[in-house]
Amino acid sequence: MNYKRFYLYVLGLSVLFIPSGLMAVQAVKQKPLTIQEQGSFAVGGTVIKNDGTFDPRKPANPAGQSFHGDHAYVFYQKPVNARKLPIMFLHGAGQFSKTYETTPDGREGFQNIFLRRGFSVYMVDQPRRGNAGRSTIAANLTPTPDEQMWFSQFRVGVWPDYFPGVQFSKDKETLNQYFRQMTPNTGPFDVGVISDALAALFDKAGPGILVTHSQGGGPGWYTGMKSDKVRAIVAYEPGSNFTFPEGEVPAPIPNTFAKLSGVAVPLAEFKKLTQIPIIIYYGDNIPDKPSDIPAQDYWRACLEMANNWANLVNKYGGDVTVVHLPNAGFKGNTHFPFSDLNNVEIADHLSVWLKKKKLD
Amino acid sequence: MNYKRFYLYVLGLSVLFIPSGLMAVQAVKQKPLTIQEQGSFAVGGTVIKNDGTFDPRKPANPAGQSFHGDHAYVFYQKPVNARKLPIMFLHGAGQFSKTYETTPDGREGFQNIFLRRGFSVYMVDQPRRGNAGRSTIAANLTPTPDEQMWFSQFRVGVWPDYFPGVQFSKDKETLNQYFRQMTPNTGPFDVGVISDALAALFDKAGPGILVTHSQGGGPGWYTGMKSDKVRAIVAYEPGSNFTFPEGEVPAPIPNTFAKLSGVAVPLAEFKKLTQIPIIIYYGDNIPDKPSDIPAQDYWRACLEMANNWANLVNKYGGDVTVVHLPNAGFKGNTHFPFSDLNNVEIADHLSVWLKKKKLD
Repeated sequence: MNYKRFYLYVLGLSVLFIPSGLMAVQAVKQKPLTIQEQGSFAVGGTVIKNDGTFDPRKPANPAGQSFHGDHAYVFYQKPVNARKLPIMFLHGAGQFSKTYETTPDGREGFQNIFLRRGFSVYMVDQPRRGNAGRSTIAANLTPTPDEQMWFSQFRVGVWPDYFPGVQFSKDKETLNQYFRQMTPNTGPFDVGVISDALAALFDKAGPGILVTHSQGGGPGWYTGMKSDKVRAIVAYEPGSNFTFPEGEVPAPIPNTFAKLSGVAVPLAEFKKLTQIPIIIYYGDNIPDKPSDIPAQDYWRACLEMANNWANLVNKYGGDVTVVHLPNAGFKGNTHFPFSDLNNVEIADHLSVWLKKKKLD
Repeated sequence: MNYKRFYLYVLGLSVLFIPSGLMAVQAVKQKPLTIQEQGSFAVGGTVIKNDGTFDPRKPANPAGQSFHGDHAYVFYQKPVNARKLPIMFLHGAGQFSKTYETTPDGREGFQNIFLRRGFSVYMVDQPRRGNAGRSTIAANLTPTPDEQMWFSQFRVGVWPDYFPGVQFSKDKETLNQYFRQMTPNTGPFDVGVISDALAALFDKAGPGILVTHSQGGGPGWYTGMKSDKVRAIVAYEPGSNFTFPEGEVPAPIPNTFAKLSGVAVPLAEFKKLTQIPIIIYYGDNIPDKPSDIPAQDYWRACLEMANNWANLVNKYGGDVTVVHLPNAGFKGNTHFPFSDLNNVEIADHLSVWLKKKKLD
């Protein structure tokens, strides 16, 4: 009995033992989820109000009318006998809560995996994205073909080639689902607006664990500084907006994709991130040395920035762990470890850490 | 024991018996939901492809790149021992799947209610809305204050007054949630694109019952004509795009809001809608006679159009029932009967109809 089979066995799952490559197309009968409560709500945001008086006979006249926007949208599920701390999931750039739902090849994502492990889950669409589309700032949306860029940027491979051994199913429908799990910004990306809405979510839902992905990493650090109800942060491949104390921001890290700078915050704010355990994960196929492929080179710079940041937080008494997955025995992970073919093992690694930090 | 209490009792629910006005802020402990399977996927849509060759060293150049868009996004849940036919839920204008989730005042919507009654549920975001935001047609989004219009248009009242006896909670947070459950179009509303994606959903998920709301009524009729897997249609307050046979389209119905015309389709297509049972619901506070309040007058015209349409479908051998809720003993319903304060009773009415039509 190998590790994976044993793991499924101890969870009491009824599964067909089939080659993992066939998992996507085979019916895998799992135990039912028992949900004590589920629902959705908007949280945070602001209101625009026009002067004047609304005239119900002239409903198209905006005088005296209001506009609620910039909230997050959240769908939550609480399993029966839930663990004390829920997990709040924030997506990355171009993505929405789907990131953590069914994987592109049709398996369970972290939403179901952590529900099965007894955690309440809060799936967030950040302000101005997906179901939280009502933005107080205008936007022009243009359908610009860009998916070969994302295929490379998300380190599935360098289009049209998949990385050897990549943890990503090569069937056509997987790629179709993967591209369709993107959705545009309906207003400017704004770290402040997003972290305000997330802090409001923690106020409403109570203390919890924040999981972020990619561009969501920045709003995650800010949420950790804004809310004392963030009890831990788990960041998958954070990119821009690492926060450093004023006067200690490192030089930008050169790379062939985009400028990567730290962001200055007051030392007192920065120190709040020393009060909670933090774990940061990066996947495979990140080059050691500068590369002329921008999609790879950027993540080299981010990993370096993450290590710099972790060292400084830890110097101030913090508890940050950076896991470069290939060094921990996980090969072939993309920018989305939580939905990769080995996502159960990736979840296991997190479960061990949560237990170690007494967060479960 | 009144009807409502008795109903909850027979479902075996553990509830606190409290005045309904307090329901929004009181914890109501329900039996757990047992979910055999849940997940999400994109369905339908199209692909734009640019000529040329993608150069991974110039990722911002769209040459050789693709764009997947115009799909629907669907989150589904299948209860243990699900009934044979699932229910597919399509929202209306300015809305997304939230329409059928938690109500603005915090109670369970049709998603949970029909899960509890044993139906699998498919919650749809139509192409170019919400989580299905990737549109192949460009859009400009502008935050125009318009909520007092919607308050009236959705017949909560005529701003700032609530209708007397309206089935809508008057606390401030309810209105906040109500306005924030809107999200903009990220591309033009297109009946053909939406019904194509819905037909693809029925192809994927198998035969089922289609529930539509408001503007979603039009795509619903087209889906019923495109897919023989639509086994029934339940339309809450359908608006534009009633389909009539060529040569039998009635004159537009004058009203003070917008032009309301039928749409011509080939007779053979129209006749497909005579092959399935259809029920159409309208709420309260729709005037009998022309009104100078456009938000009310429009629904008077829609109800008249629905009756005309039902008569014609039935003349051709169809099975359409139009329920004007006040005539059936339900007072105070808004444009959203499925999330109104009496939504359990509204669901009961539907359950009785589904049973009568052998759809459960």
